[in-house]
Amino acid sequence: MATAVGVKGEASAGGHPGPECCAGYRRAVELIGKRWTGAIVLVLMDGPLRPSEIRQRVPDLSDRLVSERLRELEAEGVVERAVLGDRPVRVEYALTAKGRALQGAVGALKAWAAEWC
Amino acid sequence: MATAVGVKGEASAGGHPGPECCAGYRRAVELIGKRWTGAIVLVLMDGPLRPSEIRQRVPDLSDRLVSERLRELEAEGVVERAVLGDRPVRVEYALTAKGRALQGAVGALKAWAAEWC
Repeated sequence: MATAVGVKGEASAGGHPGPECCAGYRRAVELIGKRWTGAIVLVLMDGPLRPSEIRQRVPDLSDRLVSERLRELEAEGVVERAVLGDRPVRVEYALTAKGRALQGAVGALKAWAAEWC
Repeated sequence: MATAVGVKGEASAGGHPGPECCAGYRRAVELIGKRWTGAIVLVLMDGPLRPSEIRQRVPDLSDRLVSERLRELEAEGVVERAVLGDRPVRVEYALTAKGRALQGAVGALKAWAAEWC
């Protein structure tokens, strides 16, 4: 029993101390770090926006890419789409609870950029 | 004078309240979010590592990509390379102060991934 625990401990540590990169973290950092995605999440932190309003706040972001990124973020459960009114139709995107939970990470990256970049 | 200030205020606000995405933040989030980069920064948080040790801790990372990403991070001033001893040569990479300052962002993204992914 003691031997089994020892062997398991060694195997799970992979022969080294310290942190190991997990798939969840990698997925999170590469999701928010995809070109334009982190910018879109940042400008949505203050409340729902229409795609045209997102483009106003993110220099150089195209119509095509704002739509593509919003679809990806919706598929990940980070933003949700709301259709308001019917004539004219007004489509807005808002962060979900999962999206709002990125506030700490976004704030830390903004602070880091302000200090170091 | 009052009019000029008013006009300037409107122009700089771009006709909308709320946050605007700045180039520094975008650069920061897309730097750390580039494929494998966030993972490499994470495993270096605990101290300097050789490239082979980084690969042990980051599943599926290739020799070629660990070298490429370390060169990019060195160019950004996030990691630094140290050559220790001369026979055999031992090359290690460590986070700089700028790299260690990413700890808050990395920790927030790890916590977010653990809760939401």
